[in-house]
Amino acid sequence: MTARLKFFGWGREGEGLTQAESDFILARARERFGVPAFHEAAPPELAALRLRPPRLAPPPTLAPLCSSESYDRAAHTYGKSFIDTVRGLAGDYDDAPDIVAYPRNEADVAALLDWAGGAQVAVIPFGGGSSVVDGVAARIDATRHRAALTIDLREMGRVVEVDRASRAARIEGGAFGPALEAQLRPHNLTLRHFPQSFEYSTLGGWIATRSGGHFATLYTHIDDLVESVRMVTPRGVFETRRLPGSGAGPAPERLAIGSEGILGVITEAWMRLQERPRFRAGGAVRFADFFTAARALRVIAQAGLYPANCRILDPLEAYNTGAGDGKSAIMVLAFESADHEVGPWMKRALECCADHGGTPESAERADAHREGAAGAWRNAFIRMPYAREITVPRAIINDTFETAITWDRFESFYDRVKAATEDAIRRVTGHPGEVSCRFTHVYPDGPAPYFTFHALGRHSALVQMWQEIKNAASDALLAAGGTITHHHAVGRQHRRWYDQERPPLFAAALKAAKQVLDPHAMLNPGVLIDP
Amino acid sequence: MTARLKFFGWGREGEGLTQAESDFILARARERFGVPAFHEAAPPELAALRLRPPRLAPPPTLAPLCSSESYDRAAHTYGKSFIDTVRGLAGDYDDAPDIVAYPRNEADVAALLDWAGGAQVAVIPFGGGSSVVDGVAARIDATRHRAALTIDLREMGRVVEVDRASRAARIEGGAFGPALEAQLRPHNLTLRHFPQSFEYSTLGGWIATRSGGHFATLYTHIDDLVESVRMVTPRGVFETRRLPGSGAGPAPERLAIGSEGILGVITEAWMRLQERPRFRAGGAVRFADFFTAARALRVIAQAGLYPANCRILDPLEAYNTGAGDGKSAIMVLAFESADHEVGPWMKRALECCADHGGTPESAERADAHREGAAGAWRNAFIRMPYAREITVPRAIINDTFETAITWDRFESFYDRVKAATEDAIRRVTGHPGEVSCRFTHVYPDGPAPYFTFHALGRHSALVQMWQEIKNAASDALLAAGGTITHHHAVGRQHRRWYDQERPPLFAAALKAAKQVLDPHAMLNPGVLIDP
Repeated sequence: MTARLKFFGWGREGEGLTQAESDFILARARERFGVPAFHEAAPPELAALRLRPPRLAPPPTLAPLCSSESYDRAAHTYGKSFIDTVRGLAGDYDDAPDIVAYPRNEADVAALLDWAGGAQVAVIPFGGGSSVVDGVAARIDATRHRAALTIDLREMGRVVEVDRASRAARIEGGAFGPALEAQLRPHNLTLRHFPQSFEYSTLGGWIATRSGGHFATLYTHIDDLVESVRMVTPRGVFETRRLPGSGAGPAPERLAIGSEGILGVITEAWMRLQERPRFRAGGAVRFADFFTAARALRVIAQAGLYPANCRILDPLEAYNTGAGDGKSAIMVLAFESADHEVGPWMKRALECCADHGGTPESAERADAHREGAAGAWRNAFIRMPYAREITVPRAIINDTFETAITWDRFESFYDRVKAATEDAIRRVTGHPGEVSCRFTHVYPDGPAPYFTFHALGRHSALVQMWQEIKNAASDALLAAGGTITHHHAVGRQHRRWYDQERPPLFAAALKAAKQVLDPHAMLNPGVLIDP
Repeated sequence: MTARLKFFGWGREGEGLTQAESDFILARARERFGVPAFHEAAPPELAALRLRPPRLAPPPTLAPLCSSESYDRAAHTYGKSFIDTVRGLAGDYDDAPDIVAYPRNEADVAALLDWAGGAQVAVIPFGGGSSVVDGVAARIDATRHRAALTIDLREMGRVVEVDRASRAARIEGGAFGPALEAQLRPHNLTLRHFPQSFEYSTLGGWIATRSGGHFATLYTHIDDLVESVRMVTPRGVFETRRLPGSGAGPAPERLAIGSEGILGVITEAWMRLQERPRFRAGGAVRFADFFTAARALRVIAQAGLYPANCRILDPLEAYNTGAGDGKSAIMVLAFESADHEVGPWMKRALECCADHGGTPESAERADAHREGAAGAWRNAFIRMPYAREITVPRAIINDTFETAITWDRFESFYDRVKAATEDAIRRVTGHPGEVSCRFTHVYPDGPAPYFTFHALGRHSALVQMWQEIKNAASDALLAAGGTITHHHAVGRQHRRWYDQERPPLFAAALKAAKQVLDPHAMLNPGVLIDP
């Protein structure tokens, strides 16, 4: 049996950074902030938590699906945002749900919603709980709700049906990444959707939050991988027809995709799959600076080559992840195919790089994406979520935010957002920090920049400091034309900027739709809109 | 000055088929139905039409934008569906709008909506009027409306702004295809969206109806070309932020895309463009039969090659368009790029064809797509809409319907839909007819089949006969798992099947959204939903 998920931190009990990884991160942090050591707080212990007694018990018919044990409640109190980690570290589990339910099938989900509607219980669809935007907290609206029920679909993780001809599968919403892929592997198929949270997030969560996969172009946003979706709402089942494409009215699946648990629980979807790649070419390319790398990347993105990967890292990002010396920008470039040799594609992309002075590191080897700068970056990327377990207890404020912007505005956008974030760090903490950037996804009309920042905070004021930095960064990002989120979702943390970004009349339409599907306003209060 | 649009038929006054084209079509028709000649009805004459006097006049402030002249009203009575042509032929213009308005800018559009809301006037956004699904008729709901106003955006056809770096442009909703492309050409850019109606349809109409372009894979559905959209609703302007991608809640632009004029008038959009292609390879490939061609095409569609064109025609479709001898299925295959030679792509696609016994006709020549079978088909495709002007007056029932279906179900789907349509033709007309099929678009998980049927009707019963055939075809199509429309839209003709296809809870949500955006239910009554 696998270990259970941690109630605090990333992943399962017993997992974490290796000593070497930990040493690397802390050495970089000491160097960055010019300090010899950190004030270290101790992580919380489950036995020491004082949880409010549950405000309500489930009815006997549902009791077998439900738990109000401390572990279950604590493990479902938070997502994985910076603030979540700070509050967890402080032993603040006041928002613990009263009940956690583990339905085994769709009828269970419907029964839970039926009961909650009558009992005035707020319902929070949990996904894998990897939200970094406060999207899964068991907040209630005291004027409407008496208690909070968190629904965890981990018992609904099956690949139910595989259509080899269309390369599609019907998959339950609670499937975690690794289990989903393991069930597809015997068919030589893959969903090929690898968000950073892959191991600890679910299909339903990906769809509800418009998750972004690891791949940089074409079929990587979960939106494009959904063939049809099935969602249980308080008013019944909302299911779209399984189709490769349609032009029949406004796309109904798009109402469910990105609904962040406010309209229903996504129990199942038909997903578009791919064959497992057999041909690969890739490697890292060095550029004089980030903007030059971005210009080369723009040409590649507009050339119709569709690389599997074409991330660029600014010099600081490259340095901090061990992928570079801090003097050059790095492009991680890769092509993959299950059908054909990708040499001509890679050759043309490298020509585009050369036109901008890009020099390849070791582009010719098939496994180059696992070696050198590209490999170093890849490892750092996968292990990154564990780092908070060692940085937050040392009062290091470390967070990321991501967006998308058209090419015409990218350079001034980057300068403004970076400067605003650096200024805020200096003003708020009294020390300079660091702001680095990479691209996670690239479209013909613009990139999706992803910023990381580091600041040295004080234990007594971590949340407030983080919030001020976040406000400054988000204000700048919105003012410069970006979106408040390309794939992290809105949740509660991005609400203020989401409310500015989305058309007011769309908010009114969404609110009207919610009133129809969730008439008692019980689903995920505070997320996306106020009912 | 260009000639004005016909009030009956396709295109502008003075345009039509050449004698040779006309002879070809009628010869095929005589052969098909085994008759030496047809009973021919005379086309309607504008001067002879008896239009109901307008039920209302516009207020003086709006009068300069408006016309209630017979030509304007007659030219805005119908779209281009089979039934529209039959009714027009009979001189039945009872549904003529009372007023046709030609706003010059967004303020005009808003003023028209304001007046219409107060005056209980139904408002029909006309686009280019090329609807084949009864989407632009000036039908009113007599319990709500006193008159009908059709809004024609032909005066709003400018490319307002071009962003060369992002390859995008801000374009007014009334831009017709040729004028739009002419304005982009100096920038060496193209929207590259070529629906069959290209010359006589508008950007706003394409977005409102989820138009499908000529190209077969990747960026061809208008949905994917919209960077942001601006729509004037009775409640104000609905405008989405210009972004290459976003994950902020359910996609707001998707509510406008496919809204078919029931939520507002699309006045402007930022559209994703492409560079004009410089490299081409293409030609026709012959296959033993349609299913074998489809299997080859499935491999190509799943290989990640993304041909610009990869249509297949069944033997009858190939014969009827002059592209084949009726014994083989034809694949029209083409690659295009503005960036690189496409030889490796074409080579691999032809290997996929060869694996299924496909033999290329003349694949090596750069202009092969304009010659031979591919060229014959291409010409027939572009000229097809004019044919109704000669077939309907001869009581020939000739129509098309289109759909999409996953690969696993395609072969049985094709058999069932074709058989149901053929049976209905025989039953309804007493003669055998013809049903042929091609693919217009291909996705990794399934094709978009496009059916054409021919039947010999009687002048006294054309509408009823057509409706019975349409019902049988649509019932079969829905029962076999397809969508009622991949890119023709829903309008009023597809309502019965759309109502079955879309999730009931989505209809409820859409109705709630409409009540917010169009509280007086004045926009395009009868289309998509009943308010």
